[in-house]
Amino acid sequence: MPWDLETIFHPRSVAIVGVSPPHLTERGFGTASVGFLLGLLEMGFPTVYPVNPKYEEVAGLKCYPSLLDIEGPVDHVISSVPASVVPQLVEQAIAKGVRSIHFFTAGFSETGDVERAALEEAIVKKAREAGIRVIGPNCMGLYVPKARLSFSPLFPKEPGPVALVSQSGGHAIDVVIGASQRGVRFSKVVSYGNATDINESELLEHLASDEETEVICAYIEGVRDGRRFLSALKGASAAKPVIVLKGGRTSIGGRATLSHTASMAGSMAVFDAALKQAGAIRVDSLDELADLAVGFTFLGVPRGPRVAVVGGGGGMSVLAADLIGEAGLDLPELPTSTQEELRAFTPLAGTSVRNPVDTVTLWEPQLMENTLRIIASAENVDAVILHMGFGFMAQRLQDGPPSPEETAKAIAKARQATGKPIAVAIRVRFSAEDTTTSMRMAEECWRQGLPVFFGLPNAVTTLAKMVAWRTRREEA
Amino acid sequence: MPWDLETIFHPRSVAIVGVSPPHLTERGFGTASVGFLLGLLEMGFPTVYPVNPKYEEVAGLKCYPSLLDIEGPVDHVISSVPASVVPQLVEQAIAKGVRSIHFFTAGFSETGDVERAALEEAIVKKAREAGIRVIGPNCMGLYVPKARLSFSPLFPKEPGPVALVSQSGGHAIDVVIGASQRGVRFSKVVSYGNATDINESELLEHLASDEETEVICAYIEGVRDGRRFLSALKGASAAKPVIVLKGGRTSIGGRATLSHTASMAGSMAVFDAALKQAGAIRVDSLDELADLAVGFTFLGVPRGPRVAVVGGGGGMSVLAADLIGEAGLDLPELPTSTQEELRAFTPLAGTSVRNPVDTVTLWEPQLMENTLRIIASAENVDAVILHMGFGFMAQRLQDGPPSPEETAKAIAKARQATGKPIAVAIRVRFSAEDTTTSMRMAEECWRQGLPVFFGLPNAVTTLAKMVAWRTRREEA
Repeated sequence: MPWDLETIFHPRSVAIVGVSPPHLTERGFGTASVGFLLGLLEMGFPTVYPVNPKYEEVAGLKCYPSLLDIEGPVDHVISSVPASVVPQLVEQAIAKGVRSIHFFTAGFSETGDVERAALEEAIVKKAREAGIRVIGPNCMGLYVPKARLSFSPLFPKEPGPVALVSQSGGHAIDVVIGASQRGVRFSKVVSYGNATDINESELLEHLASDEETEVICAYIEGVRDGRRFLSALKGASAAKPVIVLKGGRTSIGGRATLSHTASMAGSMAVFDAALKQAGAIRVDSLDELADLAVGFTFLGVPRGPRVAVVGGGGGMSVLAADLIGEAGLDLPELPTSTQEELRAFTPLAGTSVRNPVDTVTLWEPQLMENTLRIIASAENVDAVILHMGFGFMAQRLQDGPPSPEETAKAIAKARQATGKPIAVAIRVRFSAEDTTTSMRMAEECWRQGLPVFFGLPNAVTTLAKMVAWRTRREEA
Repeated sequence: MPWDLETIFHPRSVAIVGVSPPHLTERGFGTASVGFLLGLLEMGFPTVYPVNPKYEEVAGLKCYPSLLDIEGPVDHVISSVPASVVPQLVEQAIAKGVRSIHFFTAGFSETGDVERAALEEAIVKKAREAGIRVIGPNCMGLYVPKARLSFSPLFPKEPGPVALVSQSGGHAIDVVIGASQRGVRFSKVVSYGNATDINESELLEHLASDEETEVICAYIEGVRDGRRFLSALKGASAAKPVIVLKGGRTSIGGRATLSHTASMAGSMAVFDAALKQAGAIRVDSLDELADLAVGFTFLGVPRGPRVAVVGGGGGMSVLAADLIGEAGLDLPELPTSTQEELRAFTPLAGTSVRNPVDTVTLWEPQLMENTLRIIASAENVDAVILHMGFGFMAQRLQDGPPSPEETAKAIAKARQATGKPIAVAIRVRFSAEDTTTSMRMAEECWRQGLPVFFGLPNAVTTLAKMVAWRTRREEA
């Protein structure tokens, strides 16, 4: 009887086989196994066993010649040995009573080599017959903060409600780091590579009823069993928001998925139809995937499509309006009474209070709060987008921009007072100084429970997808 | 006889009327006039006259009570006084023999107020009758580095071949700063606001034959005279690449352009048809506008649509392939001989040499050069996209990422050896450290004459638009 997934997310001990000491890494060649070790140590995972016959000690830990030399039980194995040595490792894992193996090891079916594909098949079959579950091969494995598992020392230690399953390890890292900078925290992240044993459908089925998961994000290159996948997607989407990025949307991209994870990308029209039928949300980039995770964590689903936009700069107002129009959202003119309330403290020249609101009242927290509160209170507004950039403003303000902490609090107060979703869109200019200010603002915002997007298009797209998601659910 | 545009781009002296001393700026209210003064001083413009009856000195310069109190001739006036005072200022400008007035002053037709619109009309008529040319109102005016004119102290001092005309001052700043960080330099930048006198058509006509301008970028909200515009656009596009971002692409956006620059946005279908007929390039965001400026400055127009993609990370390869497929470009499988050449030094596991090339050979400059040279030499490759990110790699490399300078040189060598365009796409993660590394890399690249794009989608879109531009010209 193979181990079930939940058990695999909570191993009592982990062995990293084929790990090299950090100081021996060569530039650019296969040093990621150290990341696994450092990730586990950084998270405070209690029982880690480095395994490599070449070393007696790695990163201050005793290093074992083989799995079988470890005294205690080993629940989970991370394999960083070459593909040719894997059959031997599987034998040892069976002898040791291991529950799961994550093969970081690559060089199997994705090479297009028939013998290597056969080796992969044989290895996984053998492991499964012994009850061992396999993650991968050719992947980064597990990040489960609650269980103190991680494949990078850069990931947050605190758990949260977002799950991510990804056929690409690089994409998983990209989304976790990008979204966590904006406050998103994760229940379970699984980079599952070639999906030879544990695959997208089983993961979705599991996460659908996982009490620690409220939102599911997925990056999928190929689907093994279409019928099971559709059923899993339906089940998961009925329970919680499911956001899917497909790799291999085009025939050219499909050739790339073959080389990457040996995945048959299949027809995008069929995949798209499955997403629609299930009520899952399609996104088309890594940024959108992270943005939707931010949206479902912090924004709150707007009750309708009517957006108010607030910020400084008439050009940005026009840009925002076009983005909103193109996304199928509405940008209603604010009621006369709202415009009058705003005009009471907004100078006439160089501003507009119709919607978009192009104003100069955002750089003093109390005025910011008043402006947002008045706008969000309007009866024809379902959500507000506040856009700001620090690079330009900093030079105009004698004392520099206002404190990010005060500003974030002012925004949060306006949201609390009105109950309307407020999205904060920050335009980051690529300078280190501006980035520092923007990141401070982003952190203060998410600590106040506010969603941050890096750019107006990102905020608009997220809002539009969340509104469409609600509409579809209400119609269903 | 009104002054012609070229004269206006080269004033001998500038008076800034209504300027306030830097130390008196209030947070967020109308302090931009100081930016004009600091911009001119920073550029080393020789003769600047601050004008404001309230002060005797501003930023170390003698401040004059009125235009008429200035001893020498005044060619160009920047007006930062309230709209109500403008008629008096125009009287004085006429008396003083001024050639041009740039009205930073806002609060005219864009407010939607009939009387204010009439005032704008009357002022401009009066100025024109006296031969004075008017820029604006409601705009940032002129950045002409060769003439040492600037509206921001942050702009580069060196001139270059890219012109930008923009109805939005904020957008002009955004594009100049964004593009200049990637090496783009400018001939003439005109933020022209409400376009009551100098408008998009006259600017295009002028830039079409401007010898200092090789590429024209434009942000346009409304067109005053459709027939003249089409003719100007055709003339300019026949002479050089013209890249246009339209504000007010949607009916919602059109309402915003009215509030911003009193522009009637018109039908996007008609505008689009004009762009196509003229052979101009349509872009849909500020980033795309800057990206195309980078592309035409540094990339070189690829001779065809066949792209090779190189980078680390299989997920990114799939992403790149999908982007290329969706953009209508080709991603041919590399010839067997090219793949064999690459395999001679590329390990098998975790890589692919088909195209996209997913490799681990990019973090040592000599291997980077070899990899790129071999790929760019393939006879079925018209252009190469190299994608990289520093945030992820930095943690994997014992000595940190390789020197940006050496890396940029290696890329430049491969380009010189093959003559093929190579686009460098950097994925910037939003951390100050990563941004610093990425910006250093960007600078080393443009100093080597290489085009840098912040993100794969940006590189792909730019390539696709340049290839389509060439195809259309060859067919015409």
